[in-house]
Formats: sequence, structure tokens, C-alpha cells
Amino acid sequence: MSEAERRFSMGRLEAFSDGVIAVIITIMVLELKPPETPEPTALVRLWPSFAIYLVSFILVAIYWINHHNLLASAGHVTARLIWANNALLFCLSLIPFATAYVADTDLAPFPTMVYGALQFACGLAYFLVLSTVSAVRRAAAEPLEASRVHIVQNVLALAVYALGTALALLSPLAALGLFLFVAIAYVVPGLLAEVSHRRHTH
Amino acid sequence: MSEAERRFSMGRLEAFSDGVIAVIITIMVLELKPPETPEPTALVRLWPSFAIYLVSFILVAIYWINHHNLLASAGHVTARLIWANNALLFCLSLIPFATAYVADTDLAPFPTMVYGALQFACGLAYFLVLSTVSAVRRAAAEPLEASRVHIVQNVLALAVYALGTALALLSPLAALGLFLFVAIAYVVPGLLAEVSHRRHTH
Amino acid sequence: MSEAERRFSMGRLEAFSDGVIAVIITIMVLELKPPETPEPTALVRLWPSFAIYLVSFILVAIYWINHHNLLASAGHVTARLIWANNALLFCLSLIPFATAYVADTDLAPFPTMVYGALQFACGLAYFLVLSTVSAVRRAAAEPLEASRVHIVQNVLALAVYALGTALALLSPLAALGLFLFVAIAYVVPGLLAEVSHRRHTH
Amino acid sequence: MSEAERRFSMGRLEAFSDGVIAVIITIMVLELKPPETPEPTALVRLWPSFAIYLVSFILVAIYWINHHNLLASAGHVTARLIWANNALLFCLSLIPFATAYVADTDLAPFPTMVYGALQFACGLAYFLVLSTVSAVRRAAAEPLEASRVHIVQNVLALAVYALGTALALLSPLAALGLFLFVAIAYVVPGLLAEVSHRRHTH
Repeated sequence: MSEAERRFSMGRLEAFSDGVIAVIITIMVLELKPPETPEPTALVRLWPSFAIYLVSFILVAIYWINHHNLLASAGHVTARLIWANNALLFCLSLIPFATAYVADTDLAPFPTMVYGALQFACGLAYFLVLSTVSAVRRAAAEPLEASRVHIVQNVLALAVYALGTALALLSPLAALGLFLFVAIAYVVPGLLAEVSHRRHTH
Repeated sequence: MSEAERRFSMGRLEAFSDGVIAVIITIMVLELKPPETPEPTALVRLWPSFAIYLVSFILVAIYWINHHNLLASAGHVTARLIWANNALLFCLSLIPFATAYVADTDLAPFPTMVYGALQFACGLAYFLVLSTVSAVRRAAAEPLEASRVHIVQNVLALAVYALGTALALLSPLAALGLFLFVAIAYVVPGLLAEVSHRRHTH
Repeated sequence: MSEAERRFSMGRLEAFSDGVIAVIITIMVLELKPPETPEPTALVRLWPSFAIYLVSFILVAIYWINHHNLLASAGHVTARLIWANNALLFCLSLIPFATAYVADTDLAPFPTMVYGALQFACGLAYFLVLSTVSAVRRAAAEPLEASRVHIVQNVLALAVYALGTALALLSPLAALGLFLFVAIAYVVPGLLAEVSHRRHTH
Repeated sequence: MSEAERRFSMGRLEAFSDGVIAVIITIMVLELKPPETPEPTALVRLWPSFAIYLVSFILVAIYWINHHNLLASAGHVTARLIWANNALLFCLSLIPFATAYVADTDLAPFPTMVYGALQFACGLAYFLVLSTVSAVRRAAAEPLEASRVHIVQNVLALAVYALGTALALLSPLAALGLFLFVAIAYVVPGLLAEVSHRRHTH
């Protein structure tokens, strides 16, 4: 199989991953069950479902962006990269399940803990892909540059997921807040850096 | 992240968006639950479900077309464009939910209002992408030409969505008619323009 | 919009259609509900579900192949082509609904009739795309060659769908047989032609 | 149709297959129903669901990899290849159904048997594609090299699926173990070969 996999193009690995992530991010909404009665209060009572769906959507979108940049810098495909990538896709594919679990139990402590633990597992699987790409680059004598910030960022995210997972037993709401914080902490600096960059170049 | 995102190709942003929109437009039908009994009346009673599904299908198809043309003219990808685009995809991903909500409650006033408000939010998110693309083009000293008609068209659509959202409380059916009108008002002029163009050139 | 649509590349229209059709053909299986009890008889009792799923799978696969060849010969994209194509995708997107309807009602007469009527509608929508492509080709003074067999084939399929739709009221099983016959009648000649072609060239 | 199919590009056949497989591997998780109560025991009781989901995910991922390499070596598309491929996609599309069947019945003997029989059918359909590709290559006087190991591997997998299907009646758990064994037996050697290859070249 090893030889066969060497024939694999990076383009197809990316396209397959993008396809799986596009389906994951979209089918999550199927787990959002609309209320069967038309009263506004029935919809408002669903707010934990919307909150956890929003968090999941942003986190999966971040994985899509980071994953894409990571593969783009990998150069070529190995069996180890394919299976590290499959491990990540497997973890991500459970996010709709965990999202529905939290939503259906109205943000109960244990399901929120499971959600946090799954995000932690996704983070670990992402590290597996990252270390595989680094190994490929080292073997090609082209070490991955400028990834130190990226690694620190991901270690911090893992730490916050671990904290959120523990906190969920005491206060699921605080845990949800932490997960949302990770999502925003990823997105905002990139946007701000761009704005400040634009100001400096004009 | 800002640097990483600059490496992003427009092609992948388009492919991912197309994937998400293709899944959205297709999974909506999963929310159409067939009657469990074979009598024709049971199927006929589902007409509000079919009507709202048809409206949703056309509106999502229009977003697909407009979104595609917009990105095609953006030139390059920025962090702001990625997240404006994600905001639009997030709003669009809720359309199957809102469609099922209207269908399951048989076109009740409040759910129809929620549906209109979501279409309004999708329109706003589309404007966010539009203004981001305009900013990118201005920065590159290539202002987006001929988009004034497009902007007027979208402002009018927003106004009709707002009207429909308010109207839904009085008459959900009239609101549904307005949403269908927006859909047809987008599609028909393009078709007519093409026919008249063809007549003039032959 | 007409101008905007002229910028549309055929590649994206194909990719979007392929994405929608790939999702349709795959989510149909979600409507196949496995029995909740492990007895073999409970599974065997599901045979109408499997039969209609098989028919739907083959018919959608045939649309994928024919649709693909048709677009490949269209040359360029017009607003009319986009909306004829959307009409076809809309009809196809209802096939999982109609399949579930027949499956859930155990091949009852009326649902089988609705299934046949939908296949008839899909066939009509396909003709709409076909005539649009023909018009594009005529306008470019490159009439579509060799499509007469294709048109006859599709008219015959429409006739059989109409017959099956009527027959369903008397015998849903016979109608199912007719739909399966259309599917096989499309697939087998192509395979046989290929075999005989290979024999003649060796 | 045969002539039309000759116009088919391999790229689209691959893209469509990848799309269908990406949807299959992702929608399987929709069949994993989260417990409705937040107690940890309710989640733990779902372990057969997770086990069978993991096995299905790995097996479908293996089909994706093998299928991709196989098509890459096929050279050109024939009607027979399209329909052999459709037969494989049809069998694969039933895996979410069989996975849900095993999960919903808590790993009961008969459903586990059906699961094994379906994996056997997928293996047979894969052989159909393999033999079609071989025939295409022989016709082009470019016999498929180095595929003997691949054939032996697949025959062994079929034998283990047959064994697992029979064993399921006595012990569904042992059958599940066998299916997991096939999955691991495919993945591990490729990874080990790569590691040893790297050691030898450094």
C-alpha cells in the first residue's frame, strides 16, 4: 500500500478533506430540531442548541482553514499523513454527534464535558497531522518555518479545552463560554492583524 | 493567521463554499417528511411544506449564483473575506432549519416571521461579503464596476424581506407570496434580458 | 444578472450539479430506516424499500451520466441554462422524498403514482436542459449532432413513466417493474454496444 | 450511450466518486443518536454504536484510498467501468444503513451478519471494478503491474468477511473484532513499510 499511496496527489487529499468538512459543517444543522409548536417561547428555549451550534460551526471552520494551510505546506502525501488526516476527520465527524448531545440535553454538565473532551481529541489529532507534516518537511530538508506561533496557539487551545471539560461539571454555561472564547480568540487576531497591516501600508 | 490566510487560493474558498451550498440545498429535502399514510389528502395537506421548500431552493440557488460571481471578482483572499464568507455560510446553513420550522408548524405566523428574519440576515451577510470584496478591489485600485444595480437589487430584497417578516404576523400566506416574489423577481429579468439580447443580435 | 451569468464558467456549473447529485444519491439511504428489532423477518419485510431505493439509485446515476455529457457539449453558460439546470436539480432533489414516501407506505398505489409522476417531471426538466443546450448550439451555428437517438430514448422513457404512473393505481408492483425496466433499458445497451464494439475491433 | 460515455473524463468519475464517498463517510454519524438523558451510563451503553461506526469509518476510508489508486491507473473511462463503479458506490451507500442496523439493535447476531454480508458484497463490487480496470489495461496492452499483492489482500479480506458473517450468529462481538482486524490489517502494514523505508534511506 505504501507504494500505492505515494501515487496519491495532495490535490485529492485536500479535495476529499474539504468535502468531508463541508458535509460535517452543514449536516450539524440537521440536528437542530425546530420546535413543533409555533409559540416564540418554544424557539427561545432552544438557545443552548443555537449557542453550541454556533460554537461548533466556528470551530469546524477554523479547522478547515488551518488544515488547508497545513496540507498546502506538506509537499507530498505519505501513508502516515493520510491516516493522521483520517484520524482528524474521524474526530471532526463526531462533532455533529456531540453538538446534538449537548443540544438535546439542554447543556447538561456531562454532555458538555463530553463535548469539551471531543474538542480536545480534535486538537490532539490536529497535532498528529501537524507533526506528520513537520516530519515530511524535515525529511525533505525544508523545515516548516514560522509555525512556532501556530504550535503555541494550538497548545493554548488544548489547555482551554481541558479547562472547559473540567469546568463543565460545575458550570456548563461557563464551559460553553470558554469554547466560544477559543473560537473568537482564533478569529479576531487575524482580522485585527490585517486591519493594522492595511493601515501601515497605506 | 493573517499571513497563513494570504496563502489561501480563491479556488479553494469557492470550492468549499460551493460544497457547503450544494449540501444545504440538498439536505433541505430531508426535512420534508413524507406522510405516513398513503391517502392523497395527506400529501395535499403538505402543500405549505412544498411551497416553503420551493422558495428556499430558489433563494439558495440565487445566493449560489450571486456569491459565485462576487468571489470571481474579488481577486484575492483576505482574513476578512474568509470570515465574511463564513458568516454568510452560517446564515445560509440555518435555512433548512427555518424551512423545517415553517413546514412543521403549517405556515404559522411566528415561524414564518423567523423565516423572513433569517432571509434578512442572509441578505445582510451577503452585503458584508459584498463590502469586503469592494474594499479589496478599492485597495487594489480596481473599483468594482457595474455593481450599483446589484446593490440596489439587494437593498430592495432586504426591504421586501423586512416587509414580509412584519406581514407574517398578519398573514403568513401573504409573506410567503412576497418571498416567492423576491425569488421570481431575481430570476425572470435575467432570463428576459437574455432573450431580448438574443433578438437584437440576430 | 444576465451579464454576471455570462462570466459563469461551465466548470463550476458542472461541479455544483455533480455535488448536488452526489448528495442526493447518498442521502436517499438515510430514508431507509433499519428495523428496530433484530429478527430477519423484520428486514425481509423492508423489501419494497430496498427495491425502490435500487430503482432511484440507478435512475439518479443515469441522470448524472446524461447530464454530464449534455453540459459537456453546451459550450457556454447562459441564464436560461442555469435555471433549466436548477429546475432539473430541484426535481431530482425530490426523489429522496418520493422514495421515502413509497418505502414508508409499503409500495401503496397513490405514493407509487406520485413517484412515477416525479420521474416524469424529472424527464421533462431534462428535456428543458436538452432544448436549452440545443438552442445554445444552434445560436453558435454548431447544431448538436447525433442527439436524435438520445431524444427518442428520453421520449420513450417519458412514455413508460406515464404508463407506470397510471398503472400504479392498479398494481404498484407492476409500476415498480416498469421503472426498473427503464433503468435497465438505459444501462444494458451501452454495456452491450461496448462489448460488441470491442469484439469488432479485435 | 457507449459513444457518449467515451467523452467522459476520468477526472469527473473520480470527483463524483469522491463526493459520494465523502458524503457516505460523514452521514454515517447522523445515525449515531445521542442519548436523550445526560447520565454517563446512557452514553457508555452506546459503545456498540461507536465500535461499529469506527469500523465503518476505517473500512470506507480504505475503499476511498484503494478506489482512488485503482481509477488513477485505469487510463480511460468505459461504460463497463462507470457501471462497475456505480455498483461499488451502491454497496458502499448501504454501509450507513447496515451500521445503523447494528447500532440500533445493540450488536444483535442477525444484524451483525447482515453487516458482514454487506462488507462481503462491497469487496465483490470492488473486484468488479478491479477486473474492469485490468481489462481496460490489457486492451491497451499495458497490463496492470504489481497488483498481485493487492488481489491477494482483497481475497483474504473477502474470506475474513465471510468468516465474520458466519461467526456473527455465534458471537457478534467476535465478528466485530474480525471486521476491526481487517481494517487494522490494511492500515498498519502500509505505515510500517513507510517507517522501515525511511530508516533504510537515511
